[in-house]
Amino acid sequence: MPAPTTSASFMATIVSLCKRRGFIYQASEIYGGMGNTYDYGPLGVELKRRVKDAWWRSVVTARADVVGLDSAILQHPKTWETSGHVVNFTDPLVDCKTCKARFRADKLEEVQCPQKPSRTPLENKCELTAPRAFNLMFKTHVGAAEDSAAVAYLRPETAQGIFLNFKNVLESSRLKPPFGIAQLGKSFRNEITPGNFVFRTREFEQAEMEFFVPPGEDERWFEYWVTERFRWYTELGIRPEKLRLFPHAKEKLAHYSKGTTDIEYEYPFGWGELEGIANRTDFDLKAHSEASGVKLEYFEPETKVHYIPYVIEPAGGVDRMALTFLIDSYAEEEVEGEPRVVLRLHPRLAPITVGVFPLVKKDGLPEKAHELEAELRELGLATFYDEKAAIGRRYRRQDEIGTPWCVTVDGDTLQQGTVTVRERDSMQQTKVGVKELGAHLLHAQRHWKRG
Amino acid sequence: MPAPTTSASFMATIVSLCKRRGFIYQASEIYGGMGNTYDYGPLGVELKRRVKDAWWRSVVTARADVVGLDSAILQHPKTWETSGHVVNFTDPLVDCKTCKARFRADKLEEVQCPQKPSRTPLENKCELTAPRAFNLMFKTHVGAAEDSAAVAYLRPETAQGIFLNFKNVLESSRLKPPFGIAQLGKSFRNEITPGNFVFRTREFEQAEMEFFVPPGEDERWFEYWVTERFRWYTELGIRPEKLRLFPHAKEKLAHYSKGTTDIEYEYPFGWGELEGIANRTDFDLKAHSEASGVKLEYFEPETKVHYIPYVIEPAGGVDRMALTFLIDSYAEEEVEGEPRVVLRLHPRLAPITVGVFPLVKKDGLPEKAHELEAELRELGLATFYDEKAAIGRRYRRQDEIGTPWCVTVDGDTLQQGTVTVRERDSMQQTKVGVKELGAHLLHAQRHWKRG
Repeated sequence: MPAPTTSASFMATIVSLCKRRGFIYQASEIYGGMGNTYDYGPLGVELKRRVKDAWWRSVVTARADVVGLDSAILQHPKTWETSGHVVNFTDPLVDCKTCKARFRADKLEEVQCPQKPSRTPLENKCELTAPRAFNLMFKTHVGAAEDSAAVAYLRPETAQGIFLNFKNVLESSRLKPPFGIAQLGKSFRNEITPGNFVFRTREFEQAEMEFFVPPGEDERWFEYWVTERFRWYTELGIRPEKLRLFPHAKEKLAHYSKGTTDIEYEYPFGWGELEGIANRTDFDLKAHSEASGVKLEYFEPETKVHYIPYVIEPAGGVDRMALTFLIDSYAEEEVEGEPRVVLRLHPRLAPITVGVFPLVKKDGLPEKAHELEAELRELGLATFYDEKAAIGRRYRRQDEIGTPWCVTVDGDTLQQGTVTVRERDSMQQTKVGVKELGAHLLHAQRHWKRG
Repeated sequence: MPAPTTSASFMATIVSLCKRRGFIYQASEIYGGMGNTYDYGPLGVELKRRVKDAWWRSVVTARADVVGLDSAILQHPKTWETSGHVVNFTDPLVDCKTCKARFRADKLEEVQCPQKPSRTPLENKCELTAPRAFNLMFKTHVGAAEDSAAVAYLRPETAQGIFLNFKNVLESSRLKPPFGIAQLGKSFRNEITPGNFVFRTREFEQAEMEFFVPPGEDERWFEYWVTERFRWYTELGIRPEKLRLFPHAKEKLAHYSKGTTDIEYEYPFGWGELEGIANRTDFDLKAHSEASGVKLEYFEPETKVHYIPYVIEPAGGVDRMALTFLIDSYAEEEVEGEPRVVLRLHPRLAPITVGVFPLVKKDGLPEKAHELEAELRELGLATFYDEKAAIGRRYRRQDEIGTPWCVTVDGDTLQQGTVTVRERDSMQQTKVGVKELGAHLLHAQRHWKRG
């Protein structure tokens, strides 16, 4: 069941499926589009909700040692001076004097340009300026004055909102290290060369957690979270052979990091970061303590010791997660001489859990199917009613969007109280009693494993 | 069980509770705060999640005629020209030449100023300029150039993202009017006089739905959605006597509206809009069709008629909803001579559903309580384990954050397999078998009614 062979055609296939079935649309499309900005359609928003819910459950609610937070996108500008973003969060840019375009100096080989730019301008017609630092934060003004006093930035990461609230959370909870604060929310980076669909966009949703530990326990917890986060992806159906760990070289670490390991996925366009786990040390809490004069530390009552915790940060992107689940679950097959496209999404992630079909549009079957659909929905299952086209075609439409089960109501339903349950991956059909249907599906959902 | 008597002290009480227990903090507090911007703490983020989930379930997943969407905050600037926001979304501002402050010309009576401003400057020392229109949209620049070509706005409402995708959703679904598209997401308004805690903030989360109907059916659907949305609030426990409908006068309607009715709540600071239901007519789809050249209309195959649907929009704010649930559920009582603070939150909204306590910290009770907590969590209930302080004090701590049930593990648990379930509002205690505990709590949660 291979996907299309070339990477460009595979991505084009995914983009096309996303638009056609309502997962992801180009934003502002009717106005010619907004560069590298995307809107999630009816199925995409449900996929994203489920990815976020699964993350929140795994990282926050299933644990006693992690709590959630939802901090504002606009924070005091001092936040970004202290964090180092005002000075360090830049890309080196060059202008081409010939074609007037602007490029990242460190990514010239990736640039698509009518006259391919190069550092050796004599080879072609491009003449490049020296690189200049360009800050990636979006800037705006708050209040009625458009002067520098009112400058604000759209946050480039959710993490800083967690550090700013370290003391608030400590004081309003009874947590003590090791403990974590997790957050889901939008961040913004004014990327010059975004790309690859929703892999890198200017506006994106982060899933970040800062796990505060006593200094000295940081390396152990770093390993713990690398393992834990890797497990999360495979548990939700990502093929392990498409994942790898990529530890950053010491000399390439961000200014705040003692060690970073990426969980990488093999995308059609090559290996790319799916999530990064960083040992941020005490860099951020220390910097904000010094800049604000507010001590961001933990007081250990037993030993009477004050200390600034170290921080382990698993940081992923929800859009990238959603894209990865889509890509990894996509397959094309031939079934009885006909092509079949199927998304082998984990049932916990699939936008629709159960398709409900009357075999034919008469004999009371539509009424019975509607009734059944309402019952399944009441159980918390996401349902979709469909009575159009032949039954095989209805199956295919659900396969393509990853619906794990389809339930068909037929004559037997009225006479013997059974329905046909058809499973997406094996395409096997089973007769199930109407009374057992809800429990059957909930059980199947709970115990699903990728084949 | 009245709340504090003066409105200022009531709001101060709510703000203080929110900070102390971790519902809502002032944003960037360690840097002196960011004006009228707030961060949600561990309990606040759970309350907000539950409010959003309840809204989504009611408006989207429980219905077959509404789908979701999640559009970007940054859309093409033409969006806001066409919607009328660039020209019309302004407040009239005046400067005081004496004290250099800036005020809304239409809200001068609300201004707090050392020298109270007035339209009759001779009465005091303020001298005001003539009013000027000040646009409420936050402006930024996308890409490397800071010129006008790259101007972008942070969306002031999520609704436009829905209108832009009308055709996309129609083509990737099989919906036909009447149908709705719903969205949850952040919007931004550069308010000059925000206030009243999270009632009006510059950054806020909207819960908007655009319901597309054939022209002529709009007034019927308008009434339907006013009733439906009113019902939602009372079903989630808001006291009906604190709610009222406020139909806007025809001459005060927004430029796009044929009729608007607010659902108002009686806040400590007076009646205020909780949600607005507007008949936006075909204004937006028509305007975007004309500006983009893309026809945003529905083709009715049976009658072969093309038409632009009318739009009914129920639009609420999630922060305002959360604040309203907090305020409305807050009560102070005297119980056996001791004060008790209680949030009578609906169990579906309470951040924690069950507190689990060992009666004492020995005899194997903590182990048993932890075991029970894990089982309840497995059922999807939000739990909190507490073994500190006397049992009465542990009840009070849960009352104050709205936890509907507390389960105490004692000697009987080990010997007879029963626990004590204590209900928040009545404070009644019941012995329940450990084996029935999960089902007992799920049933109680399902059938809860505000007393």
